[in-house]
Amino acid sequence: MSNSFGKSFTVTSFGESHGKVIGVIIDGCPAGLPLTENDLLENLRRRRPGQSSLTTQRIEADMPQFQAGILRGRTTGAPICITIDNIDTESGKYEEFRFDPRPGHADLTSYIKYGGFGDYRGGGRFSGRITAGYVMAGSIARKLLGMAGVDISAYTVAIGGINAELPAADKLRELAMQNAVYCPDPVAAESMIQAISRARDEGDSLGGIIEMTASGIPAGWGEPVTAGLDSEMAKAFFFIPAVKGVEFGAGFAAAAMKGSENNDPFIVVNGAVRSTSNHSGGVLGGISSGMPLVARVAIKPTPSIAKPQLTVDLRTMSPVEISIAGRHDPCIVPRAVVVVEAIAAVVLCDLAIIAGAIPGVIE
Amino acid sequence: MSNSFGKSFTVTSFGESHGKVIGVIIDGCPAGLPLTENDLLENLRRRRPGQSSLTTQRIEADMPQFQAGILRGRTTGAPICITIDNIDTESGKYEEFRFDPRPGHADLTSYIKYGGFGDYRGGGRFSGRITAGYVMAGSIARKLLGMAGVDISAYTVAIGGINAELPAADKLRELAMQNAVYCPDPVAAESMIQAISRARDEGDSLGGIIEMTASGIPAGWGEPVTAGLDSEMAKAFFFIPAVKGVEFGAGFAAAAMKGSENNDPFIVVNGAVRSTSNHSGGVLGGISSGMPLVARVAIKPTPSIAKPQLTVDLRTMSPVEISIAGRHDPCIVPRAVVVVEAIAAVVLCDLAIIAGAIPGVIE
Amino acid sequence: MSNSFGKSFTVTSFGESHGKVIGVIIDGCPAGLPLTENDLLENLRRRRPGQSSLTTQRIEADMPQFQAGILRGRTTGAPICITIDNIDTESGKYEEFRFDPRPGHADLTSYIKYGGFGDYRGGGRFSGRITAGYVMAGSIARKLLGMAGVDISAYTVAIGGINAELPAADKLRELAMQNAVYCPDPVAAESMIQAISRARDEGDSLGGIIEMTASGIPAGWGEPVTAGLDSEMAKAFFFIPAVKGVEFGAGFAAAAMKGSENNDPFIVVNGAVRSTSNHSGGVLGGISSGMPLVARVAIKPTPSIAKPQLTVDLRTMSPVEISIAGRHDPCIVPRAVVVVEAIAAVVLCDLAIIAGAIPGVIE
Amino acid sequence: MSNSFGKSFTVTSFGESHGKVIGVIIDGCPAGLPLTENDLLENLRRRRPGQSSLTTQRIEADMPQFQAGILRGRTTGAPICITIDNIDTESGKYEEFRFDPRPGHADLTSYIKYGGFGDYRGGGRFSGRITAGYVMAGSIARKLLGMAGVDISAYTVAIGGINAELPAADKLRELAMQNAVYCPDPVAAESMIQAISRARDEGDSLGGIIEMTASGIPAGWGEPVTAGLDSEMAKAFFFIPAVKGVEFGAGFAAAAMKGSENNDPFIVVNGAVRSTSNHSGGVLGGISSGMPLVARVAIKPTPSIAKPQLTVDLRTMSPVEISIAGRHDPCIVPRAVVVVEAIAAVVLCDLAIIAGAIPGVIE
Repeated sequence: MSNSFGKSFTVTSFGESHGKVIGVIIDGCPAGLPLTENDLLENLRRRRPGQSSLTTQRIEADMPQFQAGILRGRTTGAPICITIDNIDTESGKYEEFRFDPRPGHADLTSYIKYGGFGDYRGGGRFSGRITAGYVMAGSIARKLLGMAGVDISAYTVAIGGINAELPAADKLRELAMQNAVYCPDPVAAESMIQAISRARDEGDSLGGIIEMTASGIPAGWGEPVTAGLDSEMAKAFFFIPAVKGVEFGAGFAAAAMKGSENNDPFIVVNGAVRSTSNHSGGVLGGISSGMPLVARVAIKPTPSIAKPQLTVDLRTMSPVEISIAGRHDPCIVPRAVVVVEAIAAVVLCDLAIIAGAIPGVIE
Repeated sequence: MSNSFGKSFTVTSFGESHGKVIGVIIDGCPAGLPLTENDLLENLRRRRPGQSSLTTQRIEADMPQFQAGILRGRTTGAPICITIDNIDTESGKYEEFRFDPRPGHADLTSYIKYGGFGDYRGGGRFSGRITAGYVMAGSIARKLLGMAGVDISAYTVAIGGINAELPAADKLRELAMQNAVYCPDPVAAESMIQAISRARDEGDSLGGIIEMTASGIPAGWGEPVTAGLDSEMAKAFFFIPAVKGVEFGAGFAAAAMKGSENNDPFIVVNGAVRSTSNHSGGVLGGISSGMPLVARVAIKPTPSIAKPQLTVDLRTMSPVEISIAGRHDPCIVPRAVVVVEAIAAVVLCDLAIIAGAIPGVIE
Repeated sequence: MSNSFGKSFTVTSFGESHGKVIGVIIDGCPAGLPLTENDLLENLRRRRPGQSSLTTQRIEADMPQFQAGILRGRTTGAPICITIDNIDTESGKYEEFRFDPRPGHADLTSYIKYGGFGDYRGGGRFSGRITAGYVMAGSIARKLLGMAGVDISAYTVAIGGINAELPAADKLRELAMQNAVYCPDPVAAESMIQAISRARDEGDSLGGIIEMTASGIPAGWGEPVTAGLDSEMAKAFFFIPAVKGVEFGAGFAAAAMKGSENNDPFIVVNGAVRSTSNHSGGVLGGISSGMPLVARVAIKPTPSIAKPQLTVDLRTMSPVEISIAGRHDPCIVPRAVVVVEAIAAVVLCDLAIIAGAIPGVIE
Repeated sequence: MSNSFGKSFTVTSFGESHGKVIGVIIDGCPAGLPLTENDLLENLRRRRPGQSSLTTQRIEADMPQFQAGILRGRTTGAPICITIDNIDTESGKYEEFRFDPRPGHADLTSYIKYGGFGDYRGGGRFSGRITAGYVMAGSIARKLLGMAGVDISAYTVAIGGINAELPAADKLRELAMQNAVYCPDPVAAESMIQAISRARDEGDSLGGIIEMTASGIPAGWGEPVTAGLDSEMAKAFFFIPAVKGVEFGAGFAAAAMKGSENNDPFIVVNGAVRSTSNHSGGVLGGISSGMPLVARVAIKPTPSIAKPQLTVDLRTMSPVEISIAGRHDPCIVPRAVVVVEAIAAVVLCDLAIIAGAIPGVIE
């Protein structure tokens, strides 16, 4: 089952970028949860293409349709199936790349794995478009987590080498929502926006780093040793096309620290054990510690660029130069922010259900 | 099942640091593979404690014993069970920390999750000692992968902020095996060794970064979208206590690159599609590309340090200062190198079997 | 994941009896398989309601629609999603039973498990209608198995206590396809048809026994000890609502035999080991033996009957008598025959893929 | 993972009949459960060979040894590993059958599947001896279920065609424990014992039917539609070598009943919905109904018999006659009774944990 994840709150993805629909099945959602399409719209909007000059000009309404699992506005305990119609598909132009794998894309590996039968139109199953399904599943997960007091927020901390200075934790979300790149540092945000425009004009693209903070997680979620919170979440972040690295807490920076610097001293706050720093990122031994969960994912620059690139014609095995004109995001980071939130939400919701923190029926 | 991993080549870990044994079950190993304890010894030796002044002085023979799955020196297709007796256990000194969770350790989260019934002696299930089981499973996986032409090599690229300069790929392993920190840069290795000694003398500890290269993987291994090569391997690296970050190819550095820099141009080499650079780290869309797989893991500094640290007495919920004397590695990186190889091997072997690259019976 | 089955050929069921659609996702189908809706129609037709006076008069076109996973008439390696619209839903009449659980149905257990939020219309997720999804998945599985030389045939061996006399194996399918109850004994078939009519007229219902034979399975499919062929198939047969028993080969009759009678003596036929009898039903130790796989499932009489029955009003917890008028099959056995074939096909296809008997790409 | 079962209470089996040990790992047992070897002894004793003239004369102490997961007499939340040494192994005599597969055994299928490398000594992994592991896991499961008020009892209802008349439910266990065949009908028990003796003297063997009743299960356990209580339990019963059929409630007899006979009318008893009959066997739609769970398994006659049988020499592919002298149970049913209880207990314990009926920590 290589299109499903989650043990007790299981998400199955289906659909292709230029197929009929993009869809998702959520199996394991408690019965009784009030749920309408409206619950999904705001998160889908943040991921949707065509919203500014920074993103692809593909226009998709991204209107979710419940196919199963809902009765009179509440979940029934049955698998929830939600689809989004694909509308603005210009598949024709992909014919030209069908045998010319785009560098940095999965075109080559898909071609080899599926013997040339894979759906190559718009990247098929490897398109960022399939993350719309995660966003829908994540919206449901966030609603359930909200009942358990857990709040998830992601935001851009770097784009194209421009690093944000982070404000106090309680200002992160508010500030991040105020600009098109979801960066909580307004000055850096402005520079990032300009850098993206510049890259777009040069026929190039940029990557970046997204940070995710989840607060309100009690100590004890996560199942060691092979189903730890960090293991499960790292695995799931790599489902997002373009993710090349994942770290928790101090992450790679911890590698250069001393134990006396990196260790988080324990103290008592309001009767619970907390720590004065959070280099662990809220996870110790694969189990949540009660401190906020903090993770960062590295997003590579969009591989589809207008600049000429060298590739191989798979029919003749001879070199060929391609230039990928058309509708591509010069930087996928802004649209990926809500996807990171969604993936984190699905993983946490699964662990919350396993930990007994979400009831089987929502009264 | 939070102590198992792998779908077709499944590894189940059991045992505690100061329990009777550390053990592992390998389910899914093809029948007919010649296998003796000797196949495991060299890798176990590299992980074993007490070998130099850089490591803990706990002395363990780490002699593996086959309990099941082998007949006359060959695997039978049945689950292989291997145990190592724990000998040099000084559990008494852990009594003192039983209610004083060590900062940076899983003591606190284990205590909360298991209601105080968890095995706290030497970290119990959260000890680095359980990685001996992975090393044994990994040795078998490496033997199977060797038949498929895959070779795995890990080496230290940074310790305590000292970064190695990497030699040509074909020199990596040879050079790395020549020093106690498994670093392929002899000059950096010397500095790392001195830094570790210094940290030890200061009652402190260091972290570092380990890189893993797997060559010989054909294009097509890995199951998108939720069982990709990068997803599965990232998940499994986080089983290693102390890992705080994982990246593939250019990893976090890709976040600051342009698409035109990061994309790996395709060319034809010996009739197969390869790329002139390898920023992708050998994985595109979760599927191996035919280029070497390159991953890096960030290891935090050992949390057990002699320097005084602040914690909380869980019985009284009042602050207490602890100093963790005794036998701890001032830097776990050197011993973790072979563990990284082992984890990578198990994940790759599982994907190889799924891809049909390893036969069900070894003739 | 309680709506999915299969490890490498995974089928996920969704949709409700009176919801928008009934659907299925098939994950793990090799790429390149030619597949159109036509491949599903004949099997769907055999399961479809409203075909004779023996079945419910609900009219459903049962036209399958591919939502994902197909490109230009071939599978792509991506998950295949197929839906069928529900059209002829008279949900209104189910309001009357909403709080009066029908004896023999899952109404009561669904109500308790889902806190009254379950979809009760037409039995919701517990309706026999969801087996249409298995039939679609099974049609694909049978196509793949056909390439491996495996042929699956189910037929009615008993209805309402009337037992068929079985003809020679090579006549089973041909004879079974010649009557409305799919019974290979024409005389018994006639009696069964009359018995069903009589039961319908009396406001009552009948059960029966379906036998399934799969020929062409080579020795070696099935993974002992907890994923054996018999274990996996028995588990899956119980997904069919109304199944109360499963047996292989001599089954329950073996319990009254002596070892010297029940053991199947081995002989050599065309260079392969076969047996002179087949009391084992083609499975030894959970592994296929090379003999035809033979299984039988017991189907209980349809619980929905017009005769008055005693139940409880769940709001008042007081006794109430109900009479279930309307469109119900007086005997579900004839329509279940193709479902038994489908379930067997999915399980065998999964084991075939695990055994390496079906290639990853169909050229 | 073909040697594990259970989702949240997972049992992994390892070891061979004539290997070093038979073992089991239980993953998912709540922390804090008091547990000593004594908790396992009584059930192991009932399964142990060599107890009467009715069973094999192989003598095994069957003394369980905890290898991991226990600290000071309580479970820790870590995987529990328990082994039993194999002592009385006369492997030599199996050399003679190594290439002469015994009819009715897995010798042939194992030989083919594992290319001749499988452990053939005493049946290896296919021996009934591996059920000792299930009995150990089942003993723990029964202890946990006991806390939830669930009681499991199995008993012999038929041997060699002799059928027991069942007493009232509350007498079943008491009467069954009073004779060597665990049959609650003393008269039938006597006949069964004589029939077994006769079969043994004739160099033949007998099969039988075991019934299992589990009382105290609340309504709502079991996850439809592919993880139902009946599906999971049926699957697991087939792990027991020699099981050829499984049925619930009226089972195959329901196939000959009318709906008006088979349906169980609902009534209110002590404020809960119950039924006046229990033809469903306590499971509706895969979910427990609150009525006692009743299942029956058909056990085939022991395939190892002294009477001469026809088989094939796998080296020469020529016919050969074998007579299996030595230590074999003329009827495995009496020893299988406690195994049926154990398997049922593991499945129910898993579903109980999923349903939230057993706490994560036992205080």
